[in-house]
Amino acid sequence: MPQDATAICPGTFDPVTVGHIDIITRGAQTFRTVVVGLIEIPLRKQPLFSADERERFLRDALAHLPNVEVDRFNTLVVEFAHKWNAGVILKGLRAISDFEYEFAMAQMNRKLAPDIETIYMMASPEYSYLSSSGVKEIATFGGSVADVVPPAVASRFAELFPRGG
Amino acid sequence: MPQDATAICPGTFDPVTVGHIDIITRGAQTFRTVVVGLIEIPLRKQPLFSADERERFLRDALAHLPNVEVDRFNTLVVEFAHKWNAGVILKGLRAISDFEYEFAMAQMNRKLAPDIETIYMMASPEYSYLSSSGVKEIATFGGSVADVVPPAVASRFAELFPRGG
Amino acid sequence: MPQDATAICPGTFDPVTVGHIDIITRGAQTFRTVVVGLIEIPLRKQPLFSADERERFLRDALAHLPNVEVDRFNTLVVEFAHKWNAGVILKGLRAISDFEYEFAMAQMNRKLAPDIETIYMMASPEYSYLSSSGVKEIATFGGSVADVVPPAVASRFAELFPRGG
Amino acid sequence: MPQDATAICPGTFDPVTVGHIDIITRGAQTFRTVVVGLIEIPLRKQPLFSADERERFLRDALAHLPNVEVDRFNTLVVEFAHKWNAGVILKGLRAISDFEYEFAMAQMNRKLAPDIETIYMMASPEYSYLSSSGVKEIATFGGSVADVVPPAVASRFAELFPRGG
Amino acid sequence: MPQDATAICPGTFDPVTVGHIDIITRGAQTFRTVVVGLIEIPLRKQPLFSADERERFLRDALAHLPNVEVDRFNTLVVEFAHKWNAGVILKGLRAISDFEYEFAMAQMNRKLAPDIETIYMMASPEYSYLSSSGVKEIATFGGSVADVVPPAVASRFAELFPRGG
Amino acid sequence: MPQDATAICPGTFDPVTVGHIDIITRGAQTFRTVVVGLIEIPLRKQPLFSADERERFLRDALAHLPNVEVDRFNTLVVEFAHKWNAGVILKGLRAISDFEYEFAMAQMNRKLAPDIETIYMMASPEYSYLSSSGVKEIATFGGSVADVVPPAVASRFAELFPRGG
Repeated sequence: MPQDATAICPGTFDPVTVGHIDIITRGAQTFRTVVVGLIEIPLRKQPLFSADERERFLRDALAHLPNVEVDRFNTLVVEFAHKWNAGVILKGLRAISDFEYEFAMAQMNRKLAPDIETIYMMASPEYSYLSSSGVKEIATFGGSVADVVPPAVASRFAELFPRGG
Repeated sequence: MPQDATAICPGTFDPVTVGHIDIITRGAQTFRTVVVGLIEIPLRKQPLFSADERERFLRDALAHLPNVEVDRFNTLVVEFAHKWNAGVILKGLRAISDFEYEFAMAQMNRKLAPDIETIYMMASPEYSYLSSSGVKEIATFGGSVADVVPPAVASRFAELFPRGG
Repeated sequence: MPQDATAICPGTFDPVTVGHIDIITRGAQTFRTVVVGLIEIPLRKQPLFSADERERFLRDALAHLPNVEVDRFNTLVVEFAHKWNAGVILKGLRAISDFEYEFAMAQMNRKLAPDIETIYMMASPEYSYLSSSGVKEIATFGGSVADVVPPAVASRFAELFPRGG
Repeated sequence: MPQDATAICPGTFDPVTVGHIDIITRGAQTFRTVVVGLIEIPLRKQPLFSADERERFLRDALAHLPNVEVDRFNTLVVEFAHKWNAGVILKGLRAISDFEYEFAMAQMNRKLAPDIETIYMMASPEYSYLSSSGVKEIATFGGSVADVVPPAVASRFAELFPRGG
Repeated sequence: MPQDATAICPGTFDPVTVGHIDIITRGAQTFRTVVVGLIEIPLRKQPLFSADERERFLRDALAHLPNVEVDRFNTLVVEFAHKWNAGVILKGLRAISDFEYEFAMAQMNRKLAPDIETIYMMASPEYSYLSSSGVKEIATFGGSVADVVPPAVASRFAELFPRGG
Repeated sequence: MPQDATAICPGTFDPVTVGHIDIITRGAQTFRTVVVGLIEIPLRKQPLFSADERERFLRDALAHLPNVEVDRFNTLVVEFAHKWNAGVILKGLRAISDFEYEFAMAQMNRKLAPDIETIYMMASPEYSYLSSSGVKEIATFGGSVADVVPPAVASRFAELFPRGG
């Protein structure tokens, strides 16, 4: 591998799900280092969890992976990659709608930084339907999301949206 | 990168196009070694060019890339990856139809060999509409494909399907 | 049919269109009872019509179907299904974008309530392009939507967005 | 349910996979009777297994489901539905390509027989990538398909395409 | 309109359906002349009807449209356009799968002949599910296709695939 | 061409990109007149640039095309077409998501005004990933968009979102 084998994995992670953890884990088996890049202030919508909470959920869930780092950023993704001297942006693909959005993003990012390559892994089928927004929707109504988010996230949801009572 | 940084890039390459060459070139910038795996006998349809011709076209077109190998195989893709001790299968994605086929293939291959990861790069937009079968269709009618295949392939098409005269 | 042959058909119905009515009517020919479940307070966007108006539009449009009920809810869809002892959630599919969203929803709902099956009917082609939001967009500009919504809805639109003078 | 609660589930089943069995099992929990309709002579391609073999694989795999029948046909699907007095055709949807094909089929079938409704269930995510043709492709190369087909099918594949030796 | 307002509308028309006729009719309202171009020998599959029959079906079905011509060709589509001095290739779009194929075709054709523009009209919803191959499939089994093909085609199908007795 | 050969090309153009200019330029080679219709007040989201700015960007970028007009509107698209006596609405198609939205829009518009035909051109591949919202996202973070918008737009972005210091 001619370039430094570091991949960044950017996202809002509001909150991290087992689908994210699956991609990051597989990335950590493929690349020397994976830097999870937390977007502090997403452009499109106000996150439910603060950047501090989202970072803590990530660190807890990924602590067992020695070659995974967590960092925060608020710049273009390619600048974050340059900061870490990473040649690769790693993303997961779940569905067609992901594909179209990511196709456009990849082209824009190659225009901005031709030295950085975006690569994709297919979501595992059992997580292919999972999204942070779907999880939040269910949790809002008091539904159990314990199977699809780390325990710390599930606990926090239970505090925010207590069942019945 | 915990595993050996070799990626295989399998295909029928009937014939190789500038779209294939773009993905292989970008792969060679991302991985230490890329082994282009030529499927000798495709299951679904009889190739137009012999395996020998397809291999020669590939070798000619990729000769300038020092960390790219060309090899032939007639086994499961994951066995070809194991033979080369490669941890990664590299594929290009052009369109939705690619996405769905590749999603299924990736899952099947992970079931067969969980140690091998399939990763994808998005086709460059200017090649996103290119396919070997489209190229053959135009060449059959005597249309020029000189912009989208290497010179050796274009010459061979001109012999096979001479214009007018 | 081992389970009770009741299907629920959930939605925001802001407002009900002839496309909704088509699916509900076909559902009423297939299941013993169809309970139309009106989501009172949608999570994602503020409805144009109040829950009372949306309910009245539904009741008017479906009054001729003896085995169709209308009810309101503000819980998880699967809880609404349990309340009615329904084994089936019935949805219409118009297009690819529906498919992807519904695929994810169906998996989430099966995780939450494995005893409930979501089933889909394809929209009739003549209604496959119809959506409540498209209808509202046209009505906002004073365009006629009399062909695609029940008369009571068309009248209300005419009051809200009077044409010209 | 105004009509007789019988659903037919048509297919070539060349061979039956765990994905088919999942849909049929879920159908048997939703409808009083499910009749699996084996298309004897598919129009588009020559099956690998004879109709007798395909029927035997189905009967073996479904023997534990008391309200499931297996029958063969070589007519329009809607005629097969009429023969069994079934008001419903049940199909599984795995992906976008399925969706488009099935959308067209559903409309054609409604034109031919307006009394019959086609309904769909979403494939379980863990089977969403499975297809009979993918299974055959892997088996042809001697890959193991024991996880995705019933044991009798796996044994037959092993006879047809012995590994190495 | 700087160029000559002639559009060609190419296809195999095996056989012509009411969906084709709808696009050609709408094209004839938009362009001064529409030349329907019958591909005599399709590359991919053997047609059911001879070129003479397919041409006769087209001429019968379009005789009432004064600004529509029918012609046969066996060259690249752009050469056929040049022959008629047409600046436009007119195609219908029914579904996503059409879109992807046509996107690739349009790019290839622009490379071959930058002076020719391919333009698309969306299929009318009531014909969006119609295809010549679907029609043939139903007719083969003796199903009625009288609603979706011109009378002359329906009669010919009835001769080829007589019902029952 | 029986109708007057004027096409309207509607949009929010917030801001105009080289992708828009490509479609309008190709339209101007196909139709006698192209009227670019600027939607003053988009329904769905607040534009970044004022209608005056968006109009100025369009006029600057299209000044070299003698048969292109720019006009503003705040009505149904079909009413804007009628105002200009145009028989055609011209749109670009970039991707599947465009296709689905435009399919629905085309059907709605034909219902509102059967005398007006919507026609589509495929985006050039090198612009197929471009969108006004993607451009704004990059510009917001100070990324260079000089390649994908006209110079006047790039300058305005540089004023709004100055880089670093």
